[in-house]
Amino acid sequence: MTTSSPATIVRHYHQAWTSCDIDGAMALVADDINCRAPGGDLAGKDAYRGFIGGFAPMLTGIGDIAEFAEGNRVALFYYPETAVTSTAPAAEFFTVTNGKISESVLIFDRLSYAPVGQD
Amino acid sequence: MTTSSPATIVRHYHQAWTSCDIDGAMALVADDINCRAPGGDLAGKDAYRGFIGGFAPMLTGIGDIAEFAEGNRVALFYYPETAVTSTAPAAEFFTVTNGKISESVLIFDRLSYAPVGQD
Repeated sequence: MTTSSPATIVRHYHQAWTSCDIDGAMALVADDINCRAPGGDLAGKDAYRGFIGGFAPMLTGIGDIAEFAEGNRVALFYYPETAVTSTAPAAEFFTVTNGKISESVLIFDRLSYAPVGQD
Repeated sequence: MTTSSPATIVRHYHQAWTSCDIDGAMALVADDINCRAPGGDLAGKDAYRGFIGGFAPMLTGIGDIAEFAEGNRVALFYYPETAVTSTAPAAEFFTVTNGKISESVLIFDRLSYAPVGQD
């Protein structure tokens, strides 16, 4: 049993994946996570890991904007900085169940992260 | 002087623009609003009104997901339903100053709202 708050769990998750520690991040994610991501839903930890693990290596930095927490729900707003952009924000709305992230709504503008010239 | 809380102001703003009451919505927005929107920043109420006023008529419904409030900061997650999609979420992070929305970070995936076949 964990005694960490949902906000702490999400903060550790965020810190891990944005440092390319994908194993550390996935330790905080439920096996049956459902994630609504731009372009389609991700069902289960394997699909989610593939998505996050594919994006994390492109990060060159992270700019945090805001965090909100209420009960088992946590929201993050931040700038995932890449070679293409450092001003395109992302938002994530997490639900934490039994100490793990069980649902995520992940929002960002795919066009803002497209290679220059494809926008 | 208003006595409404930041969360109430944002809720009224959200309710107004999503009902196509653009005047009612803009009454709750500061003249010098800064908005970070997908594809570019909007400086000032005229630019912001043009953006929101251009999108509002495309709405066919709204699906609210979550609201967070802390001090003068408020976050909304919701589904702007259009003819193209009802499953592409949007997030807004508002700062309220002196009873009006003074800053907004608006996040959605433009590709998800593109006409079918352009994705």
